[in-house]
Amino acid sequence: MASSSTVRYRVNGHPHDLVSVRDRGLAYGDGLFETIRVVNGRATLLERHLGRLGRGMSVLRIEMPLTSLRSELEAAAVELGEGLLKQIVTRGEAGRGYAMPAIAEPTRILQLLPPPEYPAAHTLKGIRLFPCATRLAHQPLLAGLKHLNRLEQVLARSEWQDSGHAEGLMCDMAGHPVEGTMSNLLLRLDGRWVTPDLRHCGVRGVMRDYLMDQLAAEGEPVLERSVTLDELLACDELVCCNSVFGVWPVVGLGDRKWAVGPGARRLQVFSEQVLS
Amino acid sequence: MASSSTVRYRVNGHPHDLVSVRDRGLAYGDGLFETIRVVNGRATLLERHLGRLGRGMSVLRIEMPLTSLRSELEAAAVELGEGLLKQIVTRGEAGRGYAMPAIAEPTRILQLLPPPEYPAAHTLKGIRLFPCATRLAHQPLLAGLKHLNRLEQVLARSEWQDSGHAEGLMCDMAGHPVEGTMSNLLLRLDGRWVTPDLRHCGVRGVMRDYLMDQLAAEGEPVLERSVTLDELLACDELVCCNSVFGVWPVVGLGDRKWAVGPGARRLQVFSEQVLS
Repeated sequence: MASSSTVRYRVNGHPHDLVSVRDRGLAYGDGLFETIRVVNGRATLLERHLGRLGRGMSVLRIEMPLTSLRSELEAAAVELGEGLLKQIVTRGEAGRGYAMPAIAEPTRILQLLPPPEYPAAHTLKGIRLFPCATRLAHQPLLAGLKHLNRLEQVLARSEWQDSGHAEGLMCDMAGHPVEGTMSNLLLRLDGRWVTPDLRHCGVRGVMRDYLMDQLAAEGEPVLERSVTLDELLACDELVCCNSVFGVWPVVGLGDRKWAVGPGARRLQVFSEQVLS
Repeated sequence: MASSSTVRYRVNGHPHDLVSVRDRGLAYGDGLFETIRVVNGRATLLERHLGRLGRGMSVLRIEMPLTSLRSELEAAAVELGEGLLKQIVTRGEAGRGYAMPAIAEPTRILQLLPPPEYPAAHTLKGIRLFPCATRLAHQPLLAGLKHLNRLEQVLARSEWQDSGHAEGLMCDMAGHPVEGTMSNLLLRLDGRWVTPDLRHCGVRGVMRDYLMDQLAAEGEPVLERSVTLDELLACDELVCCNSVFGVWPVVGLGDRKWAVGPGARRLQVFSEQVLS
């Protein structure tokens, strides 16, 4: 078990970093991915990552046993020690045309990456959100999944370059806040935890699910519903969460300022339970 | 100049068929593609294909000179003789994260493919359209572009397997017909040519543009506007068009039947002028 700054790759279990140009992951974004934080040789929130991957595979009708994938990820986590595992699963190689091939051998692409280098201040003092103009399209068939069609996130993330914003707020076509470019949102509103619902768009984050379960277990179920921008600006606390960095309190969005509150600290206790 | 059933590949001009797993085309569908029909060693509608590619590169901010791409495609067309050139352009390789890399070397992937094997009856006797339930999300930022985020088309095309339907009809979230899974639509309505507008979704087909220009040049500008399903079902003639197969008359959609009309034959004269 040793962390390393070298990136290592596996394609279908073999140690190389190349895929065929015939792979439908490249041709159509026809696949899914997960980015898993590895701590002390352990792939954190692994069952939840595999659960989301499985839901995505079911929707896209990509068939691959998750049991062997689980073993591969667990072994890679031990090898990596500390860092990130990025797992891509595509439908595999095929000829031209959108039709799913009758027989397809899915491609598994695994990257062993060094730990992320986010400033500790993001967690301790909070972050500012950039208000992205790029909006999320409503596509209920794909909502919640972490698929490889991510041009909206690419465009949204390109809207700012300064390091003063650690994340960007993305709204849907109706102008309702949905998520960050790489994280989910939790708000403290009228004494309750609220999170934007993801029926129409957005990625159903593994850390979001975990935090919701923890809060529910303590008798504070999180309300999943459509949230307006006015509500978001009026909330008492706002945080971003994902399974890589955990929980970042939001202390600024445009002119609006927040203090880091007790709610954010409480969520960080939950996230630290799995990420450390 | 010789056609061949063998597929040949070039990646950045080199004769191989592999790309890095770090390529953002694979990671996020961060790129574009064109499929160009080659006839008699000539890449048909090449300037229009390059024009659309250029528009897409501008929106996605992928920088690459089109002049060298044009030369490469022209040389490949001579080499191929008859068939298809599939050109993919991605943002290139980069590390993890949605942010566009400060310095990126776009990846050019070229496939030299044999001619498509569509039955001649599709052109002569017309086709049936499958009514796809998969709808196109509204995303004006990406509408019109032929980008690599194509899961909606993959899902729509998976809705039917029988050979009785050669193409599928895709509607937008409002239920309005927009396009086929791989083609555009032209309708004969109240004595005029109409085509669904593509402001919110859909791919702006090269053959669609060409046909619109030909009709406009003959004093019959095509009306681009939102079309309802009722209007489509009530139209006198309906065709699908793309730059690979040209123009297919539609003779069936659910219970609705059409005869192949003079409008379709006229459009086929135009398409044959460039595809033969």
